[in-house]
Amino acid sequence: MALLTDFGTRDPYVAAMKGVILSRCDAEIVDLSHELRPFDPFDAGWFLRSMKDTLDPTHGALERLVVIAVIDPGVGTDRRIVAAIDEGVFFIAPDNGLLPLALSARATCVSVENEALFLPRASTTFHGRDRFAPVAAAIVSGHAAMEDLGPPIAMADLVRTAYRPPSWSGGSATGSVVSIDHFGNVITDLAAARIDPNRPLTVKIGDHAISELRRTYGDPSDDAPYLVIGSRGTIEISMTRRSAADRLQCRPLDEVRLEATVPADPPNTED
Amino acid sequence: MALLTDFGTRDPYVAAMKGVILSRCDAEIVDLSHELRPFDPFDAGWFLRSMKDTLDPTHGALERLVVIAVIDPGVGTDRRIVAAIDEGVFFIAPDNGLLPLALSARATCVSVENEALFLPRASTTFHGRDRFAPVAAAIVSGHAAMEDLGPPIAMADLVRTAYRPPSWSGGSATGSVVSIDHFGNVITDLAAARIDPNRPLTVKIGDHAISELRRTYGDPSDDAPYLVIGSRGTIEISMTRRSAADRLQCRPLDEVRLEATVPADPPNTED
Amino acid sequence: MALLTDFGTRDPYVAAMKGVILSRCDAEIVDLSHELRPFDPFDAGWFLRSMKDTLDPTHGALERLVVIAVIDPGVGTDRRIVAAIDEGVFFIAPDNGLLPLALSARATCVSVENEALFLPRASTTFHGRDRFAPVAAAIVSGHAAMEDLGPPIAMADLVRTAYRPPSWSGGSATGSVVSIDHFGNVITDLAAARIDPNRPLTVKIGDHAISELRRTYGDPSDDAPYLVIGSRGTIEISMTRRSAADRLQCRPLDEVRLEATVPADPPNTED
Repeated sequence: MALLTDFGTRDPYVAAMKGVILSRCDAEIVDLSHELRPFDPFDAGWFLRSMKDTLDPTHGALERLVVIAVIDPGVGTDRRIVAAIDEGVFFIAPDNGLLPLALSARATCVSVENEALFLPRASTTFHGRDRFAPVAAAIVSGHAAMEDLGPPIAMADLVRTAYRPPSWSGGSATGSVVSIDHFGNVITDLAAARIDPNRPLTVKIGDHAISELRRTYGDPSDDAPYLVIGSRGTIEISMTRRSAADRLQCRPLDEVRLEATVPADPPNTED
Repeated sequence: MALLTDFGTRDPYVAAMKGVILSRCDAEIVDLSHELRPFDPFDAGWFLRSMKDTLDPTHGALERLVVIAVIDPGVGTDRRIVAAIDEGVFFIAPDNGLLPLALSARATCVSVENEALFLPRASTTFHGRDRFAPVAAAIVSGHAAMEDLGPPIAMADLVRTAYRPPSWSGGSATGSVVSIDHFGNVITDLAAARIDPNRPLTVKIGDHAISELRRTYGDPSDDAPYLVIGSRGTIEISMTRRSAADRLQCRPLDEVRLEATVPADPPNTED
Repeated sequence: MALLTDFGTRDPYVAAMKGVILSRCDAEIVDLSHELRPFDPFDAGWFLRSMKDTLDPTHGALERLVVIAVIDPGVGTDRRIVAAIDEGVFFIAPDNGLLPLALSARATCVSVENEALFLPRASTTFHGRDRFAPVAAAIVSGHAAMEDLGPPIAMADLVRTAYRPPSWSGGSATGSVVSIDHFGNVITDLAAARIDPNRPLTVKIGDHAISELRRTYGDPSDDAPYLVIGSRGTIEISMTRRSAADRLQCRPLDEVRLEATVPADPPNTED
């Protein structure tokens, strides 16, 4: 059972969720991250989108393919809790925009409303402990099935964030910085599969224009930012052993413009 | 087997404890926190007190209900190591005040003195690896029982911290800030069950007085601190998506005064 | 299966490795650290060296004694990936100097080159997810043995860091700061077993000279740095509840000089 929160690990909140899980099912507990940007469903949704395809139900057991995502600034308000099954993986999260970033169109969703599955003395400020954890434990231990949790919701009815996918037009595209990683790499949503790497391209961000495309971070560097095709197949702006984000002074959701020559027949891609 | 330390995760200390556990029993290892305030038994004790009631032995297996707490500024001195069983959960920690904050009056304790259970080349500076981890592994794997660890200790003989519970008098109480969380919420030890939420109340901290009581963190905010009943049933001072602690310039163990009208027949509460 | 990286936990990189492992074998996932100094094989190698002897194959099951170490500034270049079995423990790491710091002379190593074991859409920037994780999962689940991974490599052919072990000469030695821990302890590579603790000794670092040897961190302090024999049997410079590293303004790999009277017949030691 994999946990994703913005709680940090200094406080007893993650520990309390783990206590509930340890006491209610045999599932192994795995930390995905507790350091997500506080209150930001986009950050959490993009995190899940970036790693979700590693969860492969053809190999893994169900109890290992459960994700509890609690980035929940609206805890205790009337925002819904959503449970979803997507390609064999179970998700539970608040209905605040994070799940549509990660789920495929084939996911089935329910609104979690069965109070019998919540902890008896439920608070209005900590649904991670009082609702998300016991509901996930009930699913893993077989004490509840999806239909026991609450009524179905159509994917189209889930709350969405303000994020919009990149728009492509001829040789150009306008996209977004989707994250800045620990090493200072600036990760965009511009799919490298739509680019012909043998023709010149330029990425513009703020006042900067970067045209050099490299294969790895390990290549020798002249202290200038360069482009790399990142581990999710999108364009990143990087520097070798330095923070490109600091150099470029950029942030998540900043605009990125690409000027390139596209292949005659661009491959189909979801990104 | 759940681990709680002030070691951080940058150094090999937590990893060494995990290595000992991995090599000596089959228990799953779960991180509670390694970011506790260094050298502070109060911080560790309050952390455990805040999440301990999630550990429920009616559902969980013994090996999942073991807590190793190593916040141990006195390592290598003659401070004792205490093992306790409390409501079906096994604890091992230094005798420095942290356990009495978390244990119920029904806990049974022993002084851990059986050197045969320690690692052979024990150091004077790292009992987490050399004593706490192998003793907990011996308990979980059935190689030792409580009575094998050492002589009993009465709860009353455990070392205690300077923390004192709040004092209530008519409509007023004097309590403490018990923690500042990751989001900047200021958590007090003032039990909300002793307050009538329908009558006016004021919480004073430093030069600030706060009277507005809200139900959730998600309510719209006018950029002023407000009161919330937190996830442990005590009064918190919060701001929506801002740090109340920064605004109020307060710290753990700062005094908090409550002026309120108590119900005619206040419910009994331990807190 | 124990993970060691410099990825931090804010990004989806560790989560992606965990996703691959969760989907491909039943091994429990244990975090050793994700906070290692970015791009620094020495830091990672010394971390492993400091905790490796806690991994004891006489007790632990193979699946619990697997270490994946991904501190990999050269990812995607022609640096090799090395798998090793050392005293019953399986390691996989880039060939950048970290393993020789941790492995014994009895380790057997192979160069991991069997592409059938890698994820099919392998990137040039994230071998942790695409190569290290699936190869370790294949080993743990019995789908591959060491000889399936690639050709043998002699220990002597592994890349090494610039670190050199201390040199001893009569009553003196020149060694290195090998790490600064979370508490500010300055950890050296000078083996305490080569020192007679009953005769005067002085440790010099920068402009500072420290001669007082204490038994524990818990002794009362006069606000001056002192020497302690640390948990790995080497000399540390410490202060009680303060950072000795801040006081001494030192860093990893700074030179440390010891002036002491050695025992007539110094015990043999590897450190």
